[in-house]
Parts: sequence; C-alpha cells; structure tokens
Amino acid sequence: LTGRTVSTTKLIGLDWGTSSLRAYRLEADGAVVEVRHSALGIMRLPAEGGFERAFDEVCGDWVRAHASPVIACGMVGSAQGWREAPYVEVPAGIDQLAQALTPLAVAGGARIHIVPGLILRGALPNVMRGEETQVAGLLGGGDALVCLPGSHSKWVSVAGERIVHFVTFMTGEVYAALAAHTILGRTLRAPAKPDDEAFDRGVAVARSPAGRRGLLATIFSTRTLGLVGQLSPEAQADYLSGVLVGHEVAAMAADAAQPIVLAGADDLCRRYQRALALFGLGPVTIAPDAAARGLWRVAVSAGLVR
Amino acid sequence: LTGRTVSTTKLIGLDWGTSSLRAYRLEADGAVVEVRHSALGIMRLPAEGGFERAFDEVCGDWVRAHASPVIACGMVGSAQGWREAPYVEVPAGIDQLAQALTPLAVAGGARIHIVPGLILRGALPNVMRGEETQVAGLLGGGDALVCLPGSHSKWVSVAGERIVHFVTFMTGEVYAALAAHTILGRTLRAPAKPDDEAFDRGVAVARSPAGRRGLLATIFSTRTLGLVGQLSPEAQADYLSGVLVGHEVAAMAADAAQPIVLAGADDLCRRYQRALALFGLGPVTIAPDAAARGLWRVAVSAGLVR
Repeated sequence: LTGRTVSTTKLIGLDWGTSSLRAYRLEADGAVVEVRHSALGIMRLPAEGGFERAFDEVCGDWVRAHASPVIACGMVGSAQGWREAPYVEVPAGIDQLAQALTPLAVAGGARIHIVPGLILRGALPNVMRGEETQVAGLLGGGDALVCLPGSHSKWVSVAGERIVHFVTFMTGEVYAALAAHTILGRTLRAPAKPDDEAFDRGVAVARSPAGRRGLLATIFSTRTLGLVGQLSPEAQADYLSGVLVGHEVAAMAADAAQPIVLAGADDLCRRYQRALALFGLGPVTIAPDAAARGLWRVAVSAGLVR
Repeated sequence: LTGRTVSTTKLIGLDWGTSSLRAYRLEADGAVVEVRHSALGIMRLPAEGGFERAFDEVCGDWVRAHASPVIACGMVGSAQGWREAPYVEVPAGIDQLAQALTPLAVAGGARIHIVPGLILRGALPNVMRGEETQVAGLLGGGDALVCLPGSHSKWVSVAGERIVHFVTFMTGEVYAALAAHTILGRTLRAPAKPDDEAFDRGVAVARSPAGRRGLLATIFSTRTLGLVGQLSPEAQADYLSGVLVGHEVAAMAADAAQPIVLAGADDLCRRYQRALALFGLGPVTIAPDAAARGLWRVAVSAGLVR
C-alpha cells in the first residue's frame, strides 16, 4: 500500500468547439460522473495563456488528480485550433477515427488525443469537426439519418457502423446574419418565449408551393406580412426561423424515408422535431448528449482505455 | 415679349430610393436633357434639413429656373419617406399609378407628385416601390417577364399593358450579409475585377443536382472549396454571388418561357444575363434606364404634362 487513492476516473473527454467547451469525467464503461460547461471556445480563449490556460481552468484539477488519458474533439483540431488533426475521408467509422488521433503533449505532462474531423470529397466537398464524434456515440442502432441542428446543421447518413455521407446547412448562422444585418431585423422583436405557432407558420411557407421560389424569396414575407398587419414584430423571429428550418428540412425530405435521430441542444431539437412532424417525416428520436459516449468509444477503439 | 426666357423643361423626375437619388430634367416627348446622381437616399439624408435640403441640393436650381411639375417614385413615398403614398394593388398599369399620385407641397412653392408603390395581396404579400415606375417605362412591348436585379431583386410579370404579378428576392442584401457577417467572409477577398469564371461556376452549382439542397447548403461550398484549395480567396466573392443569383434564376426558370427584359445597373444586368444564358433562358434584352421614361408616362397620364 502506497497510501495514494486509487482513481476510478478512466478518461477525460473534451468537446471543444468554436464558442464553448464541454468537459466530461468518465469512469468504467464510459459512465459520465462529472460534466463542466465553459464559454472558452476556440474563438473565445483567454487573451493571455490561450489554449493552455483554458485547458487548465476547465480540467487542470482533474488531470492532476487522476492519471487518466485525455481525448478531445471539435474545432480544437482545426487549422485555427490548438493542434491541427487532419481530416479523415468518409466512409468512416469509429476505428478510422481512433486510428487517426493526433497527440498533443501539454505542460504538466498531460497528453491530449485529438479526434480528426471528417471530409467528404467530390465536386462540392463537405467537412465536419466534432459532429463525427457525436455520431460515433450513436452508431450501432442501424441505418439512420442523423440530424445535428446548429449554427451549421449537419445531416449525416449512417449505414451499418459507418458514416457514409453528410450535408451541411448554414441555417443557424444565416438566421443570425439575416436578423442582425438585413432589413428583416428592423421590425423583428425577440419574443419573451418561443412562439411555436409562428415557427410552424414559417415551416408551412417553406413547404408550400410558394416555398419553391426558395428562401431568397420566402424570407421577404417576414417583412411584408408585418407591413399588412398579419405578423406581429414579436412573431417575426420565430416565423423567420421556421422559414429557414423549413427550407432545410424540405431539402432533405427526399432522403428522409428512414429513421431520423436528432442530437443537439434541447430547444433546437424541439424545433426540428416540430418541423419534421409538419413534413410528415420520421420516426424521429432525440438522442441524449452523444459526445461523451462518442469520445469514450473512440478512446476504447484506440486503446486509451480498457 | 416679357424678356423672360421661355423654359423648354416640361418635367422634373426623381427616382428617390433608399441609398441614392437620381434626378432627371425632361423636355418635350420625355427627352432626358440632364441627369444628376446623388447619394442622398432616404436613409442618407443630411442631418439638418432632411428631405427639404436634399431636394434643394439636387434640383432646387431646376425648380427655380423652370415652372415645371415634379414627379417622384421610390422609397421617398414609403412610411419612412417624405410623404407616404399608399400602395396600389396589382394588376395595375400606368393609369392606376397616375390616378393615385400623392401630392406634397414643399417650401418655395414646388409641388411633388409621388408615385404609389404596388402591393400584391394573398397568403404571401409582396410590395415594391420605384420598380413599378421602371416597368411603366417598359410597358407596351407585349407580355414579358421583367427582371430588376438589386438589393431586393424584382421579377415582374407583364401582361398587355399591366403588371399582373411579381416576386421579390433578397439576393443583394443576403449576399452582403453573408459576405460581411458569416464565416464565409473570413476567407473571401474582393477581386480586382469581376471574376466571370467564378461567377459562372457558382451559377452552375445552383443549377446542378446539388443545387436542389438549396442555398443554405450550397453556399457552404464557398468555404469548403477554399479549404481543399479549389477556390482562391479572390474567386470566392463572385462564386458566392453566382450561387445566390443561380438560385434566384432557378426559382424563376419555370416561369421564364417568355421574353425576359433586364433593367438596372450595368454590372448587375451583365451578371444576370450570364446566369440566364447558363440556364438557357430568354431571349433576353437589357432595357436602358427605364425610370425616366416611366416617370414621364405616369406624368402624362396624370395630366401633369401635355
């Protein structure tokens, strides 16, 4: 007996994106025993100390207390991240991700293993970083279409145990740009609580024959319905959101004749579930936070944990 | 003989929009003998003096020298304008515009007659201000689809001598918001001169099977093609422009089996002409500045000039 406490922590997992960082402490079989949220995304790092300091603030105590390996996914592995982890080409499954981890030694002796992003080559290439790990946490449930709504929504086609295809929609970011930087924002007021009726109305417009004109045309109705007194300023935000999400879902409807899995922030999943229901798509299930499970599975496949 | 010079000026016409003001001095038969361009759009008025001062700066000398009537179209007649000129419903022709002029007496004795905008009622209302006058300048050439590209592009269906329908696409404004306020702008560099090849490539993407995903998906290729080294930063601006204009033209393609008339700024007309050609639409003609002719025709119909 050395007198030292035997740690039951098996893995520290980081989901480190552009605008936030989520840290998980995992024990045997990937059980999450502690979660920390931080706003220290890679574009919001401390002015002094950058990545090292953010890492230390968020999980330095875990690293010092436990001799467990660290695995990270997301934009931390991008060209603007801490260490670039080159993309892996689809089709790819957990093994391909595990075989391409990029190691990074940090001060104090910790070693971070960064999960690669995925790239789809072709006439219109597509990329993801972080979502591949969330999907890795969901693999094994059979063929499905996984929708990860967000600033850049991803629709990921899963066949067997592999990601075979995916599409990116800039829905969240386009919404923010339209609401803040076009004429639509002049009359739009943030509602006190989500206005589901206005959201559904926007989805219905995207799904209607008028929706075939595309969103450059349909979004203008946010303003004109306001002008004629048929859409209040407080309803315009969720209406516009519905129009955009409706166009996104309409674009995927032809591919969505299979089980759909939603993963992401609660409010976004709820909105997308409404939109999918209005299009008559599904069955739809909402997966609980999948990143921790994906980080664990990749770590197991890489032999970081036994 | 009184010794006073007899003025040959018959009409002063103003095309007064959000970001600019164009003034025309017209003689018999609507011949334009002088044009002035000003940046004094209704959102860029002098801090002191506002509309009155802008009007005086741009054409006060004309008003004092000639006893001719003044007619104005555009956002000057909006709720945010100098005097609101209520919308007229489509279908409408020159006579309906002329019968709904809103008079405005200004200091010094001048009287401005403001042309109404048009409104299309229905499930998704649509509005225009200023474009109706440009189209009025083009009426008489038979049935056509008139495209007025711009910040808010208008596609106007003309049957006989009347405007019967129109659609608005927020293409120009959405382009500006995407380029300045999303991740796409981070790698995009303004080219030294228009890059037609990049523009055509963007149009082709919108027209391709991948274009059916809609622009929320296709615009992301501006970034990913850059990431894989297939689209230079200098080519990304015109590529993105091509993607957006391509989606706009694609949305109208089913309605475009008739003569198309383009009216607007030279560079925009040139771009849209390229896009229409890539879609195999037309015949396409570019109409020279139509606003002055439209102002003249409405003034004649209203009895302001003989």
